[in-house]
Amino acid sequence: MNDMARPARLRDTRVTLSHGGGGRAMRDLIDEVFASAFRPDGMEDQARLTNAALAEPGARLAMTTDSFVVTPLEFPGGDIGTLAVCGTVNDLAVGGAKPLWLSAAFIIEEGTEIALLRRVVASMVAEAERTGVRIVTGDTKVVGRGAADGLFITTTGVGVIPPGRDLGANLIRPGDVAIVNGVLGDHGATILAARGDLALSTDLQSDCQGLGHLMEAVIAAAPDTRAARDATRGGLASALNEMAQAASVGIEIEETALPQRAEVAGMCEILGLDPLYLANEGTLVLFVPEDQAQAALAAMRARPEGAEAAIIGRALGDHPGQVRMRTAFGGSRIVDMLVGEQLPRIC
Amino acid sequence: MNDMARPARLRDTRVTLSHGGGGRAMRDLIDEVFASAFRPDGMEDQARLTNAALAEPGARLAMTTDSFVVTPLEFPGGDIGTLAVCGTVNDLAVGGAKPLWLSAAFIIEEGTEIALLRRVVASMVAEAERTGVRIVTGDTKVVGRGAADGLFITTTGVGVIPPGRDLGANLIRPGDVAIVNGVLGDHGATILAARGDLALSTDLQSDCQGLGHLMEAVIAAAPDTRAARDATRGGLASALNEMAQAASVGIEIEETALPQRAEVAGMCEILGLDPLYLANEGTLVLFVPEDQAQAALAAMRARPEGAEAAIIGRALGDHPGQVRMRTAFGGSRIVDMLVGEQLPRIC
Repeated sequence: MNDMARPARLRDTRVTLSHGGGGRAMRDLIDEVFASAFRPDGMEDQARLTNAALAEPGARLAMTTDSFVVTPLEFPGGDIGTLAVCGTVNDLAVGGAKPLWLSAAFIIEEGTEIALLRRVVASMVAEAERTGVRIVTGDTKVVGRGAADGLFITTTGVGVIPPGRDLGANLIRPGDVAIVNGVLGDHGATILAARGDLALSTDLQSDCQGLGHLMEAVIAAAPDTRAARDATRGGLASALNEMAQAASVGIEIEETALPQRAEVAGMCEILGLDPLYLANEGTLVLFVPEDQAQAALAAMRARPEGAEAAIIGRALGDHPGQVRMRTAFGGSRIVDMLVGEQLPRIC
Repeated sequence: MNDMARPARLRDTRVTLSHGGGGRAMRDLIDEVFASAFRPDGMEDQARLTNAALAEPGARLAMTTDSFVVTPLEFPGGDIGTLAVCGTVNDLAVGGAKPLWLSAAFIIEEGTEIALLRRVVASMVAEAERTGVRIVTGDTKVVGRGAADGLFITTTGVGVIPPGRDLGANLIRPGDVAIVNGVLGDHGATILAARGDLALSTDLQSDCQGLGHLMEAVIAAAPDTRAARDATRGGLASALNEMAQAASVGIEIEETALPQRAEVAGMCEILGLDPLYLANEGTLVLFVPEDQAQAALAAMRARPEGAEAAIIGRALGDHPGQVRMRTAFGGSRIVDMLVGEQLPRIC
């Protein structure tokens, strides 16, 4: 697929059904838009991979997958390609795996601009470089007009969990400290503004970023880190609820401790949204034993992805499975899991 | 995700946008439709996997991905779920890998019947069992009415290539023999008939089947097997063209040697389709050295997936990169790669 010397044959500006039929038009699209950018090693559909870390006794393989259906496809701070790389890298990272390889499968609506595909692919290549993973295999399908919404991307990630490392929400104990790496809700608020329905003019950008290097830094500084979750769909509230239930602990957070931009807070107030449920794409919450909390916090703040890291609460023996927030006014309220959707098509 | 003791909470009969929002409705859908059937080991998004074969010195990891967008979603001989498991298992198998693990990501259109999802998931579980792989992690996204066509599934497969095994189209040499495991075009013809546009009434069934066990049997019998391809989109013609180009050999096939059902041949004649370009979902073509051809053929015929296996041609030193067919009338014609599409949305 890497025959770069071949003259370009893709003359179309938009994708047609013939680009999905398995013939020469498909091969031209794959060669010139995808393979020339991703540069997979082989000529087969299948990637063949080796990594010394995988052969270490006690090492485990980690695997995760995510489909991305965000609308709009491009937004301030990223596009569906950035999201597809970061989202899957982050799912691996918060589980304690070092992300190594990604696959990328594209479902493309007939009529999609080939220039858009090239921009998205370029974003994916740049983001993969930044986060230290390789996109090693892929697929493209084309569906007729109206059978998909522009472009969907499914990325699957494979990484390696080093011997002896074990992170899991079930390992959180009462007394453990909860830390986030940055401000809440930027991605959700950005997508909402970018949809244009609300005539909102903001300078907001998605927080879309890879968290693999940050997680490695935290685990080096706080080796007994219990568990981490990236607070994507459903926001911080849903991530914390899942952790509280998995660990059978209560979780208490402090409203005043939650890092948030004034702009996002204002937007939530105007629109009646709760920032705890807004999606993030580069924000995680993790639990560490109390005596390692300062070390973890310092390690996060030393990196750009964690510059605004903050301790936001702790795990408790009381009210197992429940998340509560001490409000700015000194009261306490239950932070339930989101029931339906706050914003669909956010990632 | 495996809390089977929890009472069922999913009361809806159709998927709504709230099932994709990251909250409790989504968790109920995932728990009751997906996790209860796939039974992943952990509670994290990420699967954690070990396999002794991966730690063997010289073993390589294989990874492949495919999105499935077939219409209709259910057809004689299978459904989109069967296809999603077989397709990815087969991509691994034809590269010489033993398939081990799959991820499955679902993009679901609002309004899709939950009963349909359950049937598709049941097909996937049954097919995974048959082919000896485990579905270890997944994702669901819901998009609004009209933003997808019912259901798309992306499966990614990970397998292991044993030490010393090396299959690749570039390894085919002049003189090598081409063998297929069964009849051509059943899947494409079945999907075409199932669309109902043509008022065709047939007893045809898709050939949709996993080929992992067959490939292992062939490699055991013919250890110098050069390369295999599953003849999916673009059919046998496209697979052979890709192999001829990768190996810089000519390929000659015999029209009279191609196994085909009379029903498919008749349908092609009526509709002006070429069976060489019809999609298959359980049919592969492989090349073996001439002195191992009978052993490979016997190994294939000993299995149900290879009962109709046949030698169809050979690689030549002449006309490198080109596929030619000796016709039933003694002539010879070039079998080119498909240019556009013969049938879209076939897999």
